[in-house]
Amino acid sequence: MKYVYSFNEGNKDMRELLGGKGANLAEMMNIGLPVPDGFTITTEACNKYYENNKVISDEIIKEIFDNISSLENRTGKKMGNKENPLLVSVRSGSRASMPGMMDTILNLGLNDEIAASLESSNKRFVYDSYRRLIQMFADVVKGYPKSKFERLLDEYKNNKNVKYDTELDSEDMYNITMEFKKIYKDLAGSDFPQDPKEQLLEAVMAVFRSWMNERAIVYRRMNNIPTSWGTAVNVQEMVYGNMGDTSLTGVAFTRNPATGENKLYGEYLINAQGEDVVAGIRTPQSIDTLETLMPDIYNEFKDIAKKLENHYLDMQDMEFTVENGKLYMLQTRNGKRTAKAAIKIAVSLVNEGLISKEDAILKVESNQLDQLLHPSFDNDDLKNHKLITTGLAASPGAATGKIYFNAEDVFNAKQNGGKCLLVRLETSPEDIEGMNNSVGILTVRGGMTSHAAVVARGMGKCCVSGCGDLVIDEVNKTITTKDNVVYHEGDYLSIDGSTGNVYEGKVKTTDQIISGDFELFMSWADSFRRLKVRANADNPKDALTAYNFKAEGIGLCRTEHMFFEESRIFAVRQMIVSETLEQRKEALNKILPMQQKDFEDLFRTMKGLPVTIRYLDPPLHEFLPHTDEEIKPLADSLNMSFASLKERIESLKEFNPMMGHRGCRLAITYPEIAVMQTKAIFNAAINVYKEGLKVEPEIMIPLVGDVNELKYLRKIITDEASLIFKENNINIPYKIGTMIEIPRACLVADEIAQEAEFFSFGTNDLTQLGYGFSRDDASKFLNDYYKKGIFEQDPFNRLDQKGIGKLVSIAASKGREVRKDIKLGICGEHGGEESSIEFCHNIGLDYVSCSPYRIPIARLAAAKAAIREKNNIK
Amino acid sequence: MKYVYSFNEGNKDMRELLGGKGANLAEMMNIGLPVPDGFTITTEACNKYYENNKVISDEIIKEIFDNISSLENRTGKKMGNKENPLLVSVRSGSRASMPGMMDTILNLGLNDEIAASLESSNKRFVYDSYRRLIQMFADVVKGYPKSKFERLLDEYKNNKNVKYDTELDSEDMYNITMEFKKIYKDLAGSDFPQDPKEQLLEAVMAVFRSWMNERAIVYRRMNNIPTSWGTAVNVQEMVYGNMGDTSLTGVAFTRNPATGENKLYGEYLINAQGEDVVAGIRTPQSIDTLETLMPDIYNEFKDIAKKLENHYLDMQDMEFTVENGKLYMLQTRNGKRTAKAAIKIAVSLVNEGLISKEDAILKVESNQLDQLLHPSFDNDDLKNHKLITTGLAASPGAATGKIYFNAEDVFNAKQNGGKCLLVRLETSPEDIEGMNNSVGILTVRGGMTSHAAVVARGMGKCCVSGCGDLVIDEVNKTITTKDNVVYHEGDYLSIDGSTGNVYEGKVKTTDQIISGDFELFMSWADSFRRLKVRANADNPKDALTAYNFKAEGIGLCRTEHMFFEESRIFAVRQMIVSETLEQRKEALNKILPMQQKDFEDLFRTMKGLPVTIRYLDPPLHEFLPHTDEEIKPLADSLNMSFASLKERIESLKEFNPMMGHRGCRLAITYPEIAVMQTKAIFNAAINVYKEGLKVEPEIMIPLVGDVNELKYLRKIITDEASLIFKENNINIPYKIGTMIEIPRACLVADEIAQEAEFFSFGTNDLTQLGYGFSRDDASKFLNDYYKKGIFEQDPFNRLDQKGIGKLVSIAASKGREVRKDIKLGICGEHGGEESSIEFCHNIGLDYVSCSPYRIPIARLAAAKAAIREKNNIK
Repeated sequence: MKYVYSFNEGNKDMRELLGGKGANLAEMMNIGLPVPDGFTITTEACNKYYENNKVISDEIIKEIFDNISSLENRTGKKMGNKENPLLVSVRSGSRASMPGMMDTILNLGLNDEIAASLESSNKRFVYDSYRRLIQMFADVVKGYPKSKFERLLDEYKNNKNVKYDTELDSEDMYNITMEFKKIYKDLAGSDFPQDPKEQLLEAVMAVFRSWMNERAIVYRRMNNIPTSWGTAVNVQEMVYGNMGDTSLTGVAFTRNPATGENKLYGEYLINAQGEDVVAGIRTPQSIDTLETLMPDIYNEFKDIAKKLENHYLDMQDMEFTVENGKLYMLQTRNGKRTAKAAIKIAVSLVNEGLISKEDAILKVESNQLDQLLHPSFDNDDLKNHKLITTGLAASPGAATGKIYFNAEDVFNAKQNGGKCLLVRLETSPEDIEGMNNSVGILTVRGGMTSHAAVVARGMGKCCVSGCGDLVIDEVNKTITTKDNVVYHEGDYLSIDGSTGNVYEGKVKTTDQIISGDFELFMSWADSFRRLKVRANADNPKDALTAYNFKAEGIGLCRTEHMFFEESRIFAVRQMIVSETLEQRKEALNKILPMQQKDFEDLFRTMKGLPVTIRYLDPPLHEFLPHTDEEIKPLADSLNMSFASLKERIESLKEFNPMMGHRGCRLAITYPEIAVMQTKAIFNAAINVYKEGLKVEPEIMIPLVGDVNELKYLRKIITDEASLIFKENNINIPYKIGTMIEIPRACLVADEIAQEAEFFSFGTNDLTQLGYGFSRDDASKFLNDYYKKGIFEQDPFNRLDQKGIGKLVSIAASKGREVRKDIKLGICGEHGGEESSIEFCHNIGLDYVSCSPYRIPIARLAAAKAAIREKNNIK
Repeated sequence: MKYVYSFNEGNKDMRELLGGKGANLAEMMNIGLPVPDGFTITTEACNKYYENNKVISDEIIKEIFDNISSLENRTGKKMGNKENPLLVSVRSGSRASMPGMMDTILNLGLNDEIAASLESSNKRFVYDSYRRLIQMFADVVKGYPKSKFERLLDEYKNNKNVKYDTELDSEDMYNITMEFKKIYKDLAGSDFPQDPKEQLLEAVMAVFRSWMNERAIVYRRMNNIPTSWGTAVNVQEMVYGNMGDTSLTGVAFTRNPATGENKLYGEYLINAQGEDVVAGIRTPQSIDTLETLMPDIYNEFKDIAKKLENHYLDMQDMEFTVENGKLYMLQTRNGKRTAKAAIKIAVSLVNEGLISKEDAILKVESNQLDQLLHPSFDNDDLKNHKLITTGLAASPGAATGKIYFNAEDVFNAKQNGGKCLLVRLETSPEDIEGMNNSVGILTVRGGMTSHAAVVARGMGKCCVSGCGDLVIDEVNKTITTKDNVVYHEGDYLSIDGSTGNVYEGKVKTTDQIISGDFELFMSWADSFRRLKVRANADNPKDALTAYNFKAEGIGLCRTEHMFFEESRIFAVRQMIVSETLEQRKEALNKILPMQQKDFEDLFRTMKGLPVTIRYLDPPLHEFLPHTDEEIKPLADSLNMSFASLKERIESLKEFNPMMGHRGCRLAITYPEIAVMQTKAIFNAAINVYKEGLKVEPEIMIPLVGDVNELKYLRKIITDEASLIFKENNINIPYKIGTMIEIPRACLVADEIAQEAEFFSFGTNDLTQLGYGFSRDDASKFLNDYYKKGIFEQDPFNRLDQKGIGKLVSIAASKGREVRKDIKLGICGEHGGEESSIEFCHNIGLDYVSCSPYRIPIARLAAAKAAIREKNNIK
């Protein structure tokens, strides 16, 4: 088994073993680009490290030092040699790109002796590098707080009254280094390690360990990356962007990652190391300015960028360093981009003849489309709101929310139902959960490639970064503007990530209008997919949104949502507390015309597309008030005594409402409810049919666990329907089917299929019952599950294919055994999530149904699934 | 398709088609016994009736009347003929015996004209028969209340100041008949039907319908009889036990159904129809007295009884009638018997060389053994209680409870946690649910074969019948004794069904000592079974009971039951409300020695047999108080503020506790709990081992749904165990396994088996989650399910083999795929139920675990399953 590969042994197709960074460094070296030499320790070595109780085996250690020797031979440098030391960087690099999630250590190999020996050549640079090594080593390897080191650096700058590190001189750097060593010793109880080999092994293990740090776990969960992949470690000869004014370090994209424009895009910092750019410590310069500053370097880099894009057939995100006038490439990868950019780039690459339509579709992440479909600010309302400042338009979209200053406050506010903006001086990977929980991110520092900007774009969250004229006090939780207006925690602001504008208060939003590249791209997607896409929509407004997004029907109309409307809830409550059948029928008669009108509107909106209507589902007590204050007026208006209403409400309470009297169980106890809903549907269908429209109702019975439940209700419904058809002398074609959301239903799906013309998998409930935990209660312990590596994914977010998915596929095949043409779909929230949609495609379902705004996502995901299946791509 | 068979066309092996009664009538005719001629309408005709929306097809009607014609030819009588009319009985008879559950109509074919024509011969008899027909027809066919007719009969008796119907004369009977006709007309709006053919068809359909009456549905549910079997209908020439003093009707058993004694046993009533005996209207005479009264009849009957027992190789329950000195057999069937009798009869039949041991085992119903295992009254305590009366010892056992006077009151009192005795004048099939919910039954009227006695014996319930000197007021809910002592609803009485004694107050009970036939019989059973039988036992007392019943280990020790003890609950609560790890560990340290002692006692009691210990399972809030009154003192004793304790308790509340933070999820959040339990187990094991006993702990992790949960906890447990073994320099062999009770676990059981050395199926939770309803909440709607024919069985009582059982068998085979020698068992309550045990045998589980008192039941059921499998008996 080989655990270490020098760069000249690898290539871009070895990313499973070498990680993305390692594979691409090797590839760049192969195609003759200027890459500092080095080697990659494989992902398998990482897995072995964990299997081995976090110890690197002697075998792997030997391979590492053999490769160090070869590297020494190739570079002519020697690790630990005073005169010509080999200094290296140690960087993580996993199979999937996880920007900023894991750790890096630079300048490794420096020690007191070497620094002293080299100081005559460039003392400031040497000690700047050394103090950085100590600081990074303390943080990454030892896990000591960065603040102690940073505070000292700030003190030096304050004492000299300067703003940037670059303004500190060689003496300062020397002194800082000495003090850093002292801080390190205080914390560690021993001196900073002087042996470069010890430094190296410690750093490699620290990178392995960073695979299991919390932010990496969260990132993997959000991006469906298995823990078992592990990370590789890249050991590479250092090159220095901080050697002075002919040195720099930068990040660039071959195309604009926000808009997709085909133009080199990026930024750089003179006399800096890479970490400075990403951390957003100084605001960097645009790559364009390099053309004037260093025209040769600029042209060389531009050529390389072109070459890389043509080689990888995708927009590239590159890191580079210029050391004393010489350009080095440190990384290339397919760049993260906004949804808008993703589509523009995909369409452009097809138009430029570089890739096929199928490839273009595979390049766009379905979930990312969400960004495009979010509303933007209403132009009229904008006039009513004060523009506070304009920052960088870091991630498009518009968001309005209460401001909070750290991830925890965002989390708490969100729990209480609030929409939050996360406001930070700058974000760091620790903020990732807070970013996830907010509707948008606002930062003071950092550019377009700062952490906040990169992560927000990846998440499809709106972000405005670099609002340098705002003063943020994270302790007292305030923002102060240039004009000394102060905003406090909980105040509303509105940010526009497409313009960088920040407004006071709540700005109204309007729906995005989608066209151009998007329409073209989606038409390509539609041409490939086999799965149909329907919408979960309970009212004409949502149905219209769905129709406009090209939904091919309604897959789930939850009729109870119609019951909650203020004008109806009284009759609904009257129905629930009825003590006799007569009373209940009377109340139902009041609800009937309202429900009938709902269905008429829905049928009209969907213009003849199929509409699946689910019968009353939630436990009845959900409709009733529970406090004495609310019960009293209801009792009066229902002409009941307070005591007897309260008793009735009490009697409806359940130990485990999720597993109680709900779903089809309600209609079995009170068939008159099903009769009313049947009347409403067919009266509506007949009225709309008379207007000349096609109508295709699909009646869906929820929570069926036994065929007899469906059989019983089916008879009630068909009897009622026949009666209505006879009265009106009109026949409307319709189907009766069931939600499959009870585990037992999956195992007896062959029996159920005898009574069901369609199955719609309710994977929310199926997940809850299959796992035996309710969504509400599971939040209490799922975090422990993630932290302890027990779960990698939230099964409510991505369908668990092994267990719950197995139930779905058992039911699908049992259903088909009995009824060949049974229609199969999914209407749980998984119906709008890419990996779940691919699963639905693979087991041959007919359609997925999701919320209206996720319809384009589902259309794209369905297309990708079909293309992957066709081309056998795993 | 043939739907009607005359008796001479059938035989005893045709019970599926002809029902038990029909098949046995045919068989008796075949072997030359005196059986009134007739024919049977098949169970398939019944099913066809239901398929056909409750209409009898013309085809079947024709077959019926063809058979009437043949019967007329054979008997020389003619339906509707004035001089020599064919009068018939119409009786139900299903494949399984369901005594009293369905309907019967006698004397069918009588009308005004025929009665008038016959009255000259025996007027009293003719009108007694006619008034019975009207009464039964009104009840059974039309569903009118019996009370109107009964009240009139009572009036006539009161007016004449007589006690029995037999004391009414021919004029009375004529007048009663005329008034019954009037009552009928008032109720029906039309005259009592005069056409015998109309009467017949109506009666046949009424019997079909009685298959779906509520008491039949309940009985089938209790006895696992499928609805799809349907009932046959027997149409038979009437013979009359009510023709005068040389006529009688009786019921007898070939052996004593209470004790098993090999002696003819039964009773009869002179001048009565069969219904009078069963209903217990007059107290009948013992069959022995017939020897003196009618020696020829007695000897003829005795010979027939012997012949039938030898023919059927089992104790027979026979109905017979003597009409004017001639004996007729009306029914024979394998008799219901007490458990004690069942075993005695089975052992005797083997000893008499009539049947094999295997057959003997198959003859005894496992669930019935329950009777034998119930406690009897403590002889010393009996002296402290007043003997109120002595009735008939109708069904053995001893029971103490509060008295209630109808099924509904019993139900309500039981819901409130009470043990109830059902007290009735006499019971009728409507009382069946009340009998089921009571611990014992006490009646004033009726003999050993009365409804109460027969049903109670079948249920294994203690029953004292025929307490004629008690006066029961069912309206005011009182019992008054001879001495004018009055007992009211809710007062305690104690009844001994083995002696017939009734005592005042609560008499203490002692365990039954089992020996003799029982030990022998059980040893036969043990020699056939393959399944091992373990006990669910949480404390040394239960463990000892189990050990004495020959449990082969403990299959489930619920450790939390040890937590609730008063002396411990404080430390448990302290542990739960701990806010830091340190506090929690401190509280756990207090619990540790107590739990360790529990385990030591358990290991000692089980003397080296395996003991499966389940780790903490219930949601933590179950251990905490919830009212302010209870919280206050706890806060004081915990040194917490009321507010913060209340907040902590609130924070532990869950929406769906069944699907919340419980089972292994607790130990994952708080591994220190698992560490404490591991310490307690292995410290205990080592201590007991040092005493020279073998110890075999099996550690069971509850509620596992994903292999990683088990993997995580397994490591914690094995690490702790190794530490303890090292400290003590002793190694104890142990296993780690899991409950399989989460549906998903069944589908990923192959993964889980990689970490589990055994699976124990927790079919209670698996049923709840698989069906998606909690046991507590389902009671609200399951009654509707039974009434509407949606469910036939309570899936918490009998394992649902189609759905939940499928999950179990999927998990069993997936588990074995990965780990050939994985130990498989079941520890849900189904582990003590016959049909579920047979299922466990068939899918090859290694053991079942049940409550201690059900161990003999499980041993027998396991033996029967093995014998049935071996001999391919369905």
